[in-house]
Amino acid sequence: MNLTNDSRDIAALDLGSNSFHMVVAKVIDKDLQIVSRHKQRVHLAAGLDEDKNLSEEAMQRALDCLAMFAERIQDFAPDNVRIAATHTLRQATNSRTFIERARKILPFPIEVIAGIEEARLIFLGVAHTQPTSDDAMLVVDIGGGSTEMIIGQGFAPTHVNSKQMGCVSYTQRFFTNNKLSKKNFAQAILAAQQRLESLAHTYRKASWKVAFGSSGTAKAIKDVLIGLGHEDGIITAPRLEELIERLCTWRTIDDIELDGLSDDRKPVFAAGVAIMAAIFRDLHIKEMHFSDGALREGLLYEMEDRFKYSDIRLRTTEALADKHAVDLEHAAKVKSYARDFLDQVGGDIGIKSSSELPALLEWSALLHEVGLNISYQAFHRHSAYILTYTNMAGFNREQQQVLATLARFQRKALKLNELSNFALFKKKHILGLIRILRLAIVVNSQRHEEVLPELYLSIHDDAWHLTCADENWLENNLLLHADLQTEQQYWDQIGWELVF
Amino acid sequence: MNLTNDSRDIAALDLGSNSFHMVVAKVIDKDLQIVSRHKQRVHLAAGLDEDKNLSEEAMQRALDCLAMFAERIQDFAPDNVRIAATHTLRQATNSRTFIERARKILPFPIEVIAGIEEARLIFLGVAHTQPTSDDAMLVVDIGGGSTEMIIGQGFAPTHVNSKQMGCVSYTQRFFTNNKLSKKNFAQAILAAQQRLESLAHTYRKASWKVAFGSSGTAKAIKDVLIGLGHEDGIITAPRLEELIERLCTWRTIDDIELDGLSDDRKPVFAAGVAIMAAIFRDLHIKEMHFSDGALREGLLYEMEDRFKYSDIRLRTTEALADKHAVDLEHAAKVKSYARDFLDQVGGDIGIKSSSELPALLEWSALLHEVGLNISYQAFHRHSAYILTYTNMAGFNREQQQVLATLARFQRKALKLNELSNFALFKKKHILGLIRILRLAIVVNSQRHEEVLPELYLSIHDDAWHLTCADENWLENNLLLHADLQTEQQYWDQIGWELVF
Repeated sequence: MNLTNDSRDIAALDLGSNSFHMVVAKVIDKDLQIVSRHKQRVHLAAGLDEDKNLSEEAMQRALDCLAMFAERIQDFAPDNVRIAATHTLRQATNSRTFIERARKILPFPIEVIAGIEEARLIFLGVAHTQPTSDDAMLVVDIGGGSTEMIIGQGFAPTHVNSKQMGCVSYTQRFFTNNKLSKKNFAQAILAAQQRLESLAHTYRKASWKVAFGSSGTAKAIKDVLIGLGHEDGIITAPRLEELIERLCTWRTIDDIELDGLSDDRKPVFAAGVAIMAAIFRDLHIKEMHFSDGALREGLLYEMEDRFKYSDIRLRTTEALADKHAVDLEHAAKVKSYARDFLDQVGGDIGIKSSSELPALLEWSALLHEVGLNISYQAFHRHSAYILTYTNMAGFNREQQQVLATLARFQRKALKLNELSNFALFKKKHILGLIRILRLAIVVNSQRHEEVLPELYLSIHDDAWHLTCADENWLENNLLLHADLQTEQQYWDQIGWELVF
Repeated sequence: MNLTNDSRDIAALDLGSNSFHMVVAKVIDKDLQIVSRHKQRVHLAAGLDEDKNLSEEAMQRALDCLAMFAERIQDFAPDNVRIAATHTLRQATNSRTFIERARKILPFPIEVIAGIEEARLIFLGVAHTQPTSDDAMLVVDIGGGSTEMIIGQGFAPTHVNSKQMGCVSYTQRFFTNNKLSKKNFAQAILAAQQRLESLAHTYRKASWKVAFGSSGTAKAIKDVLIGLGHEDGIITAPRLEELIERLCTWRTIDDIELDGLSDDRKPVFAAGVAIMAAIFRDLHIKEMHFSDGALREGLLYEMEDRFKYSDIRLRTTEALADKHAVDLEHAAKVKSYARDFLDQVGGDIGIKSSSELPALLEWSALLHEVGLNISYQAFHRHSAYILTYTNMAGFNREQQQVLATLARFQRKALKLNELSNFALFKKKHILGLIRILRLAIVVNSQRHEEVLPELYLSIHDDAWHLTCADENWLENNLLLHADLQTEQQYWDQIGWELVF
């Protein structure tokens, strides 16, 4: 095997609420070597106003950071870069504006990922970073705006949660006056415990063996503990209580002087300790080790895993189809026609086979009937609802929105005013996939066992033509003919032309 | 056993698109004797304009009929009358107005039932009417606005469907010109086959043994076949084709002269025959017998069954909880507190223990977390979505809306502007149940194994007081205290007072 040909550079960026991170690695044969890590504190969360609008200053800080990162990865192929944005960009009402501006600086797609997806990737990052073990592990990642808690074994998470509490938001809520009092700590801990309530019971019962903390808060606590003489750097419940006692000896946050605590971390350290203490209490943690792995490593390893192993998204879609008792035989037929149609007209509508749209079309074919599990009536809407709100591992929000949109528009009138806006995908491409999926569904709507004749789809002057080698194919199937006529009327209502 | 004491009169009313029916029966010991049947053609569907508004004339025809029926049942206890409205009142935008006016004439609640629920009840009506058999049976009921098709064994349906096609609507669509042509028949049959497409495959595969037709269309076809010399009155595919040939010998619908066909039925007979022919073709039916049982018998027998057997709604809710993997242990705890709280304050808020609200509260406690199956985030909204759109056997639309409403308002801010309107229930009662369910959930939110101390709920001057024999109950549980304070804030935001 030629090693040189197999080597390529990949990069993962994590746009967090407190800091932006980038990690670059080299893939050599089947190995991943981390080449460089970059970090810049941008305090994005601090730039959110009461209406969840990201201020111009914060946006500029973030863009400046991205411009710097861009220099490092300017020659990378698009497939070799993955950028995930988390809590603050999930929250910001103007995150689309930010992403559009960022796109001009950094020509790679920015994916806003759900908290649950963030949690899954963090677990993956830690699992790949720690030595392999058969013990089930708990991973806790206290970020600026959200905290992820995951239990799993090997590379497979079994419990995945993301809660809206973080060291930045808790500083704003409980340490506004800058004061380090027992009362402030007690209130912050109690609030965190309320957040933990819905999962604490389950997490205590799940029998994990080792606990890891990842990202900035855990790292700062570890560093401070070492500075205080606990050379092993292990976080324990008594040490956390000791740390809180110690913090309360200073009057304000500005007064803190602790070895191992950077000036950047200082403002949000107390809140981070409070959240960690609450988690220790509620999850009955005895000791926790710090792990270098985090979201960015998760992104990185998954980017590489996608080539090595079966796609996580395939497992997600199959599990979802199973949960909602999808008729897999029918779904497979629809998928097969949809794929053929895309092969036939993809070039005309500008969808590259290397893009992720063909895969999204196939998954939507697999999942378009999940809504039947709620009710037949308006099931396309139920499918869209499920695909919008289910936590789908491996999918970012826009990809999920593509699946939901294809499900929504799979049948009935084409009310295109209900179409979502997309930042990562072109409307023209989405509309093309909608037409393809609908046709694949219509030709299979009789759910016959018999194989349909081979059909050909082509586009001439904006009109979509469905033809068959057997010229009498429709005379022999009046019902299919009627169904295609009904479909033709739906197309006609919005000025699309279908010819058969 | 004292027969006299056990005897009571019960009545079921079916407000259909073409006719209104009433059947009155006497319950003697454990037997049901049908005492009288009443029918009046009100042509409700014909009174719907393009905007689905029910005309004043049609409404008046319907109210006149109800006034007549009211005389017969004026002395009946509320529990002994059940009134179901179907397709046209499901469709009408002003059905609420009609129901309010009807209420003044007929002091019993009118339930608008979903098509699927209608189908289930029709099956029950036929199953109770035909001699008991072990053979699986198919029941087809072509109504004025919808057609129900059900397969089942004994009293248990296995396949339940309702399709929006009926003899009134198909007359309007395919026989507008009054002409009896081969072309009109062919188009009507093809349209019906399109409707049937989504179920035909499944229904053919389900191995039913006997087929029954119920209600007016099937009865008219049977009567006409007898008139044509087929004395057994069995409907078969060749006889239907023969009938269509025969009908096409007349130029217009008005010209039809067939023994057994009433003047009332004549205008919609051809469309009914077309739909029946489509069903025979697509479901591969060889012969069909007419059954006297229909929706009203289903209502009647179920009213009686509710006393005899376990409640169908219990089975429905349990199946739904199972499908969505509800934590039954937790649900049972919430249910137990909710029931105790209702016992304590039900009198104050005017909820009678004999009403169906206590049962609805219990079911909502069982089902409030179904939405977790989609996602934790905003799961109360997912629960409400599922409870709104799932076909729940045994529940009418308003009862389902109560469950959905209680799920929607189980947690988070009380945005009462999102509260639905109810016709059968008082807003005051719904709000009372919301408070009770929320409190039952809050006190159980830690999901502890330990038993909570016994709590007492009471109302004084509009303030709700939660107390405990153990005065220190909250000092010993700071987290519960904090949760109750959070809840108190939600109440406070809309001017409700919670004291603990």
